[in-house]
Amino acid sequence: MKIGRAFTTDGPVVRFVTRDGKEFFRCDPETFEPLGPLQITRLLPPVLPGKIVAVGLNYRDHAEELGLELPKEPILFMKPAASVIGPLDDIIYPPQSKRVDYEAELAVVISKDCKDVKASDARDFILGYTCLNDVTARDLQVTDGQWTRAKSFDTFAPIGPWIATGIDDPHCLGITASLNGEQKQSSSTANLIFSVFELIEFISGIMTLNALDVIATGTPSGIGPMNPGDTIEIAIEEIGMLKNKVR
Amino acid sequence: MKIGRAFTTDGPVVRFVTRDGKEFFRCDPETFEPLGPLQITRLLPPVLPGKIVAVGLNYRDHAEELGLELPKEPILFMKPAASVIGPLDDIIYPPQSKRVDYEAELAVVISKDCKDVKASDARDFILGYTCLNDVTARDLQVTDGQWTRAKSFDTFAPIGPWIATGIDDPHCLGITASLNGEQKQSSSTANLIFSVFELIEFISGIMTLNALDVIATGTPSGIGPMNPGDTIEIAIEEIGMLKNKVR
Repeated sequence: MKIGRAFTTDGPVVRFVTRDGKEFFRCDPETFEPLGPLQITRLLPPVLPGKIVAVGLNYRDHAEELGLELPKEPILFMKPAASVIGPLDDIIYPPQSKRVDYEAELAVVISKDCKDVKASDARDFILGYTCLNDVTARDLQVTDGQWTRAKSFDTFAPIGPWIATGIDDPHCLGITASLNGEQKQSSSTANLIFSVFELIEFISGIMTLNALDVIATGTPSGIGPMNPGDTIEIAIEEIGMLKNKVR
Repeated sequence: MKIGRAFTTDGPVVRFVTRDGKEFFRCDPETFEPLGPLQITRLLPPVLPGKIVAVGLNYRDHAEELGLELPKEPILFMKPAASVIGPLDDIIYPPQSKRVDYEAELAVVISKDCKDVKASDARDFILGYTCLNDVTARDLQVTDGQWTRAKSFDTFAPIGPWIATGIDDPHCLGITASLNGEQKQSSSTANLIFSVFELIEFISGIMTLNALDVIATGTPSGIGPMNPGDTIEIAIEEIGMLKNKVR
């Protein structure tokens, strides 16, 4: 099942469920049980997270590409909720940067408030998975040292198109990024250094995770720049495809 | 005027105003106009921010103490909202760290959503000022390189005791930190490298700031470690004193 948010022909924002991405249904806000059919007019970000906790250098292929040793512990940073946009929204190229990169990432959506979760219990706190483009002003990331500014511009966290539930093993999913139709990143979540469940244990051992918070699990090899006019597509098996233009 | 939040003898959380920190009044939630008197039983964090944007190395005396050049632009990081505690709450020493430091900081509370604010207009978007202790696991800050984990543990953002409004010039305020009654930091916001208004221009040029977001403006010289059992007091002229125990 996929859970999302959209404008409808009736106007207001609704939460929907869909099995195939073609037929959409209203749903119970608690149980996500499908109710009546729905005409959606525009997909919105499937979640408005309180916080986005993200992980640097978490794919073996990306670490090899950079010639870096595998990290012993996850390196964390945060993206502000204000940076979230949905499928169909544009990534805005900020004047402060001369190099803005895509980064395809598997994102985990937390289902309920939690702290000190064991990896073996982590599934109990996962609502589902979605695609996230961890857009990064690469030049500012280098000059600042700290990554916050480079990753925090408005529109730098496209999320969607929806949250896929029922994925029992998130560590065998193909993940790609394509720029103007040309594939640039292609890997599998099997290459994650720290698993989704290990990340939930590590992060919740530091800070309380709240319902609808998002964890961005890192990007594989093949990152590169985008420019105004480009179209970037992040696709993950069993989830779907997140497509945004740059302007 | 000072604006805060508290439990009262009636039970529920209320927003209050006070002139002297002794007599408290209910207030209009929009205008903060004082209404009837109020018996408060426990001060709470005066604000539950959506995000805390913080600035590294923003006092001349702190840069000199570390032998570092003055930064050309502010270095940003974020602390999660989940790390906020109030006056009277305890800072919890996490098992992951062997060195946890206090950092006295002037915090700015944003009054309304804004983007691309000019420094000369920044006053229009400031609700007021409060004290913030930017608690930092110094050892993890060094080993991680990125500062997020070191600054994001639950309880690592004591804020309070209230928000002081009507401070026209926030760049002439004495700021101190005292550990178990012994003064450890003593400076003035006159030593800020980037002014409050410049920070609002810089940060809002990157990301939308929302009402009740907090900007932590950096700490002066004299930072140092705390241990379980210690009491740490952050005091800023015209605002008040924020006191927390470590356990």
